[in-house]
Amino acid sequence: MIKEGETVHLTDNKNSFFLKLKKGEIFGTHRGNISHDQIMEKDYGDYIETHKGHKFQILRPTLYDIIMFGIKRKTQIIYPKDSAYITLKLGLRSGMKVLESGIGSAGLTIVMANALYPDGRIYAYEREESHIKVAKQNLEFAGFSEIVKIFHKDLSEVEEKDFDAAFIDVREPVEHLPKLKQVLKKGAPIGFLLPTVNQVIQLLEGLEKNDFIKIETMEIMLRKYKSVPDRFRPVDRMVAHTGYLIFAKNG
Amino acid sequence: MIKEGETVHLTDNKNSFFLKLKKGEIFGTHRGNISHDQIMEKDYGDYIETHKGHKFQILRPTLYDIIMFGIKRKTQIIYPKDSAYITLKLGLRSGMKVLESGIGSAGLTIVMANALYPDGRIYAYEREESHIKVAKQNLEFAGFSEIVKIFHKDLSEVEEKDFDAAFIDVREPVEHLPKLKQVLKKGAPIGFLLPTVNQVIQLLEGLEKNDFIKIETMEIMLRKYKSVPDRFRPVDRMVAHTGYLIFAKNG
Amino acid sequence: MIKEGETVHLTDNKNSFFLKLKKGEIFGTHRGNISHDQIMEKDYGDYIETHKGHKFQILRPTLYDIIMFGIKRKTQIIYPKDSAYITLKLGLRSGMKVLESGIGSAGLTIVMANALYPDGRIYAYEREESHIKVAKQNLEFAGFSEIVKIFHKDLSEVEEKDFDAAFIDVREPVEHLPKLKQVLKKGAPIGFLLPTVNQVIQLLEGLEKNDFIKIETMEIMLRKYKSVPDRFRPVDRMVAHTGYLIFAKNG
Amino acid sequence: MIKEGETVHLTDNKNSFFLKLKKGEIFGTHRGNISHDQIMEKDYGDYIETHKGHKFQILRPTLYDIIMFGIKRKTQIIYPKDSAYITLKLGLRSGMKVLESGIGSAGLTIVMANALYPDGRIYAYEREESHIKVAKQNLEFAGFSEIVKIFHKDLSEVEEKDFDAAFIDVREPVEHLPKLKQVLKKGAPIGFLLPTVNQVIQLLEGLEKNDFIKIETMEIMLRKYKSVPDRFRPVDRMVAHTGYLIFAKNG
Repeated sequence: MIKEGETVHLTDNKNSFFLKLKKGEIFGTHRGNISHDQIMEKDYGDYIETHKGHKFQILRPTLYDIIMFGIKRKTQIIYPKDSAYITLKLGLRSGMKVLESGIGSAGLTIVMANALYPDGRIYAYEREESHIKVAKQNLEFAGFSEIVKIFHKDLSEVEEKDFDAAFIDVREPVEHLPKLKQVLKKGAPIGFLLPTVNQVIQLLEGLEKNDFIKIETMEIMLRKYKSVPDRFRPVDRMVAHTGYLIFAKNG
Repeated sequence: MIKEGETVHLTDNKNSFFLKLKKGEIFGTHRGNISHDQIMEKDYGDYIETHKGHKFQILRPTLYDIIMFGIKRKTQIIYPKDSAYITLKLGLRSGMKVLESGIGSAGLTIVMANALYPDGRIYAYEREESHIKVAKQNLEFAGFSEIVKIFHKDLSEVEEKDFDAAFIDVREPVEHLPKLKQVLKKGAPIGFLLPTVNQVIQLLEGLEKNDFIKIETMEIMLRKYKSVPDRFRPVDRMVAHTGYLIFAKNG
Repeated sequence: MIKEGETVHLTDNKNSFFLKLKKGEIFGTHRGNISHDQIMEKDYGDYIETHKGHKFQILRPTLYDIIMFGIKRKTQIIYPKDSAYITLKLGLRSGMKVLESGIGSAGLTIVMANALYPDGRIYAYEREESHIKVAKQNLEFAGFSEIVKIFHKDLSEVEEKDFDAAFIDVREPVEHLPKLKQVLKKGAPIGFLLPTVNQVIQLLEGLEKNDFIKIETMEIMLRKYKSVPDRFRPVDRMVAHTGYLIFAKNG
Repeated sequence: MIKEGETVHLTDNKNSFFLKLKKGEIFGTHRGNISHDQIMEKDYGDYIETHKGHKFQILRPTLYDIIMFGIKRKTQIIYPKDSAYITLKLGLRSGMKVLESGIGSAGLTIVMANALYPDGRIYAYEREESHIKVAKQNLEFAGFSEIVKIFHKDLSEVEEKDFDAAFIDVREPVEHLPKLKQVLKKGAPIGFLLPTVNQVIQLLEGLEKNDFIKIETMEIMLRKYKSVPDRFRPVDRMVAHTGYLIFAKNG
């Protein structure tokens, strides 16, 4: 049975809600109201009906669900196929000090913070105040506020040093390469995500010029299948492109 | 400068060695000897020559490098493109209790352990004693021995209960679905990797029959590019297939 | 200048019309009327306005345009990425006698007929009378009526023999394999398109059982790019799957 | 039974030979000799042994087999996945006059000639005399000598006009765009294959500057499967890149 104090994920496949359960409370949706008490009579995987008869499934919320369905999106988020790989490719683990800029809606930040927990720290530099507000809410919701220090500053204004790794998602990363060389530890990994090939080419030129080493470029494609056992086949359409990933080390 | 006690990653792009530095020691390779003291006069990104004149680059070892180049491989490992996504898709984070079977060379186990650190635990069930030996060494090398409890048992012999998540990489996972339903918490996520479509179809049938919910199937493709700014293009050949990923929740 | 008697392709990127020009005629669209005489004052690539001011571009119609925009679609057509490859993989050329079933909207038939022109022949077996009607119109429009003989019959009813090649796009091709062995020349190539993996597996079993040789399976993916030189990148979404292609030879 | 005068395709999966059968002749391979008379006692799909006991399978040679295994390769050929699509995308059919440069080993030329047969013509401009020699042999072998006129000239030296279509596979196509506009009919389709993104971007700029219309860029990927019905799965490795295809019309 689901207990008071737990957070549940309600979904009808179109809408997702995350509720912290409290006796006596009523949750209102555009498809009708749901009583918290009734949820506490159910189990994960069960369905619950609103007073208008609309059904929601009650799920145990995972970190993945939080990133995909729970956080507010002020900007295009970096999708799990990319954020998971970035975090592993940078080798993030507890104890590391990581530079990120910009933070956007913190979709990647949450994945990186999870790998850095509990003793790593992200120093996130973001110029847009409105992004910072949303990012803070999302980090709090995911439980990683303490891992991330957000600065309302441009990447050029970074004052900290000795970063163990960096991830840069800004429009013109090449301008910042000399600064990045200064603030990263020697040999530390750095990653970038860029949507266009022109930006990638410009960045590769800059990385070479600034003596970065172990430069690698790649893209990750995720193809989903229709999970119907007697008519198994890929879905009809897929995402063809999110961005190119570029990785290097501070040589 | 690199200091005594640090672990360095030496690579000539074909060979990789990970050395914990100690004054006075000499490291022998088939391309000649390297003195630890000389490494301590260098910095990350620098090159060092063996007494035979062969050059190795000195890199700061990341978790990614450890998984790809540092661990012993008794079996085919689950590659980062897959292991990173699996770990995020299962929503692994500190505090969770995770079931894994088999452990193989622990390539995935290390990635999962990193996300679970410090308060999560993996219960790994492995039938092959020789795999366990290698997996233990690799987990120790990566620094995650305390996160993983390895049992020299078949998946059918699991005695623990209330798992928050599971990842199953065995030949016939469908046989174990009733057991898995019992030991997973209601609503908990589970993942599988299978190389052939026949196995996937059989598993999908089993997941439906055993009332698992939120069943999803996908494959992840990683395409690398030649990072040459004035002749930018994909590499000529790529890995076409590692395995299909199947995810579900215990409904 | 475009002359009387030529067929032009009018497009506003949403709609495509193919007109055979005749002095004095007016063509009516839902976006306004266009006078044939005015088209004959223009050149290919020019734009023409309807009396309501809506613009259409005048293109020289290619066989590709006819297949993609000119023919009526009663059924899902086999797309050029697949139909072009099928035709080459079967080695179709003038003089060959080819079996096809079913004909659908004749999207593939037109491509095959083009390779077989002028002395090859397609014997197309189609059970659906309504498909035959559309297919005949489309073949006439593309100029290949004489290359294709359509039979309102099931594949099991084929009476002709000594086919040089065959392409089979029916729901249960495996049932017809013994018949296909009989009517194909020894060593002749055969192709199949199937949307689901289950069908592919069943067909592969049948091909082995019926001693077909040189069995190959593949899929073709087409990824488009945004042709913007200073922001070059793949499009956001793509077709993830049309069907699996299976080829063999009559061993 | 296979008859005198027929051309057969002998293959042991590593080597391919194409023989025109003549009574009394002996064919020598590095794996032993084969008598033409013995082949004429077999059927397509059968195996024949050399006097050393090495087995070759006797196949009916298709145009596809000729392109992949029968022609001499002086240069990297354009692969069927691309050449088939190019030919259809350009809408090639009998009666058209097509410009090609360079001809390379004529891998694409043969596919285009097949679509143009019998009344179309290719005017192929090639600077390398050694390529021309090989291309001529390959066209003769495939039976398309009469469709193709080869000029030992640079693309800049084209004197013919009123081409219905063009395919350009030279290192710096952008230089030739003004010339190509002159010699192509208004509205005629043109295609290009380029290996690097830098070349594509430069070409796209040139196409825009020279008022070409309907500019499209794409890449085609072919993924093969292991055709084993009870362990069906993609092959381990695949070709990741041959080239980008760019198409436009002369606006």
